[in-house]
Amino acid sequence: MNLETQIVKMAQAAKVAARQVALISSTEKNRALQRLSQAILQNSDFLKKENEQDLKAAAKSNLPSALVDRLLLNNKRIQAMADSLHETVRLKDPIGEVLETYRRPNGLLIEKVRVPIGVIGIIYESRPNVTSDCIGLCLKSGNAVILKGGKEAAHSNRAIFSVLRKALTKTKIPGQAVQLIDSTDRQAVHILLKLNRYVDLLVPRGGEELIRFVAEHSLIPVVKHYKGVCHTYVSANADLNMAHKICFNAKVQRPGVCNAMETMLVHKDVASRFLPTMIYDFKNAGVEIRGCPLTRRILKTGVKAATEKDWDEEYLDLILAVKVVHSLREAVDHINTHGSQHSDAIVTDDKKEAAHFLKSVDSACTYVNASTRFTDGYEFGFGAEVGISTDKLHVRGPMALEGLTTYQYQIHGKGQIRV
Amino acid sequence: MNLETQIVKMAQAAKVAARQVALISSTEKNRALQRLSQAILQNSDFLKKENEQDLKAAAKSNLPSALVDRLLLNNKRIQAMADSLHETVRLKDPIGEVLETYRRPNGLLIEKVRVPIGVIGIIYESRPNVTSDCIGLCLKSGNAVILKGGKEAAHSNRAIFSVLRKALTKTKIPGQAVQLIDSTDRQAVHILLKLNRYVDLLVPRGGEELIRFVAEHSLIPVVKHYKGVCHTYVSANADLNMAHKICFNAKVQRPGVCNAMETMLVHKDVASRFLPTMIYDFKNAGVEIRGCPLTRRILKTGVKAATEKDWDEEYLDLILAVKVVHSLREAVDHINTHGSQHSDAIVTDDKKEAAHFLKSVDSACTYVNASTRFTDGYEFGFGAEVGISTDKLHVRGPMALEGLTTYQYQIHGKGQIRV
Repeated sequence: MNLETQIVKMAQAAKVAARQVALISSTEKNRALQRLSQAILQNSDFLKKENEQDLKAAAKSNLPSALVDRLLLNNKRIQAMADSLHETVRLKDPIGEVLETYRRPNGLLIEKVRVPIGVIGIIYESRPNVTSDCIGLCLKSGNAVILKGGKEAAHSNRAIFSVLRKALTKTKIPGQAVQLIDSTDRQAVHILLKLNRYVDLLVPRGGEELIRFVAEHSLIPVVKHYKGVCHTYVSANADLNMAHKICFNAKVQRPGVCNAMETMLVHKDVASRFLPTMIYDFKNAGVEIRGCPLTRRILKTGVKAATEKDWDEEYLDLILAVKVVHSLREAVDHINTHGSQHSDAIVTDDKKEAAHFLKSVDSACTYVNASTRFTDGYEFGFGAEVGISTDKLHVRGPMALEGLTTYQYQIHGKGQIRV
Repeated sequence: MNLETQIVKMAQAAKVAARQVALISSTEKNRALQRLSQAILQNSDFLKKENEQDLKAAAKSNLPSALVDRLLLNNKRIQAMADSLHETVRLKDPIGEVLETYRRPNGLLIEKVRVPIGVIGIIYESRPNVTSDCIGLCLKSGNAVILKGGKEAAHSNRAIFSVLRKALTKTKIPGQAVQLIDSTDRQAVHILLKLNRYVDLLVPRGGEELIRFVAEHSLIPVVKHYKGVCHTYVSANADLNMAHKICFNAKVQRPGVCNAMETMLVHKDVASRFLPTMIYDFKNAGVEIRGCPLTRRILKTGVKAATEKDWDEEYLDLILAVKVVHSLREAVDHINTHGSQHSDAIVTDDKKEAAHFLKSVDSACTYVNASTRFTDGYEFGFGAEVGISTDKLHVRGPMALEGLTTYQYQIHGKGQIRV
């Protein structure tokens, strides 16, 4: 069977299974997820053994150590995978929730009811835990899932998948509801992107290049974020002590993630008071500063000149672009022009200014007096997330269980006809 | 200026204007819409004069009379356009609504707030009233809009647009918030489809061919429905008198629209009781019947044989496909296989059966004991609609004012940082 036939067959099977999963009760779904969680723990030796093959291949091909670290499965991480599946059991089942009810003058009762989307495709890179996390979230929300992991983690993904697929045979959930595209042929992704007849939604997770490729070539709707160029604006009305703590946290606490701050904007009236100690602390934490001309004038030494390119950059590293602005308006314009519509914050004690910032910044999450680092499914109280969306349609911000659902209008009549 | 530069400039201007419209109060938006409504009435002679040119061109090119009728602007239709804008004033402004509030253990207050999408592109065919209707709905929901109408209505669209654009100068809404792509060059649509940097959402309205073209080539997210292949299933547990009325209404009341019934499914146990009088009445109303072998056996004469193609057909005409099925399951499978995920109904007195049908049919709107003809923004109580969506993401079913909005998380802190 050639690759295309194989993937089409998978997608067809997933579509049939999706209709079955949609009808399974919360109790049965939870029982199944519990079994999957146990199966991960019971097979930890097997998982580690298979993982070693990926690690060996990574060593051979001189993969950067950060990437090798992402691949690694040890006891702690296997426990975390099992915990994450277990956690899914405790999340409220979104399916069947009546979102709105309309009673029409002609007596029709219209209920807007939350239902599964159908078949979800997840395209991801090196972390093998995505395999089990996404299976858990998709099944809990009544969907089928097709997984396409990165080739670096091929052995690990196959192992996790086979353990979970086998465990499903002892549950009410049909095995066909989870599918793994096991080919490392890049053509496999091309084929998947065209299967809009069977797949309802694609979520690509990984680097900007992968995501752009998927978004540009997919016939299936895609939920995504390209990058996180997050800003913090320190207003003239800011509590500078609070601003200091928030900016430090947003940049330094975990610089390699999408909700970390990449550009700090500071109002000119407080720049000479705020910047020296702030930058001093950043430098002590190993942060490289790239500043606008005004920033460099205030700080005199030790600040590289920012280029135009710096304002659009997602460093994912201990590097920070700094710009002094003349007004709230300039700050908002800068964010709307150079940002990535992810997470942006203002530090201010002026409520009117805060309200204007929240409304004017065109991002998924806008903050007043808090670190952008909170943009996260767990931090929002949504539970595990499939990803963050900077799209404006369907789901925006952390994409958790509800993001894997849609709705349907169910209309109850007594013989009404249209006149 | 070449066509591409021209359209890009329009889109850029719309994007800037969208940020302004997003901040305008309900009162000011309503005042503006009131002015637009008046302007339509005050310029009715001009609109009719320009419309004549389209009608002349249509006569020259021998356009079918149904299409010519769609083009026509008379006093009644001009009044309807003004009324529709006026109606928009009375709709509740969706912007700023707090959809959900989360207070986190660390004190963060997360508000999920309804906000405009930004720039909406509408691609449509011959009806000129779409121009004013969509301007009204997009502005009320705080968006900018780019319109691309059909070439048959070019003069009418240009006239309506110029009247409304001029009227905007006397309001708080920037004129740039409404844009009309005035070229009849088909290339214009190609160019628009690639402007995902500026345009946030496309809604194509028209024939299946146009919509498929847009969906396949767009880099911008699209909300759409290809066609409406709607079913009514007459169960063995149906009140056959009610079933008769519902089926007749769903097929005959207005056969040329997407929520009309195209296929009637009948359970075998009631087929010989139900079909003869039903088909007799259909025939008296001029409906051509295409039946499955069992249908033809029961009715003996006057029923064409349905081919496999008939089950997928959107006739938009007085033609009906009829199939006798052996079970609820066969009915559901037929609908999920051949339907268009639009609107499908069951007639039954059995509550369990009804509940199973509602959950199992994968369509935007599922009905029990009512005509599928109710799938409509006004009938649902949503007001005017931009279209019907059979997509599963963002909006499903009638797409009215709320379908033109998204949400944003606005997070209020007191200096919280992530630990």
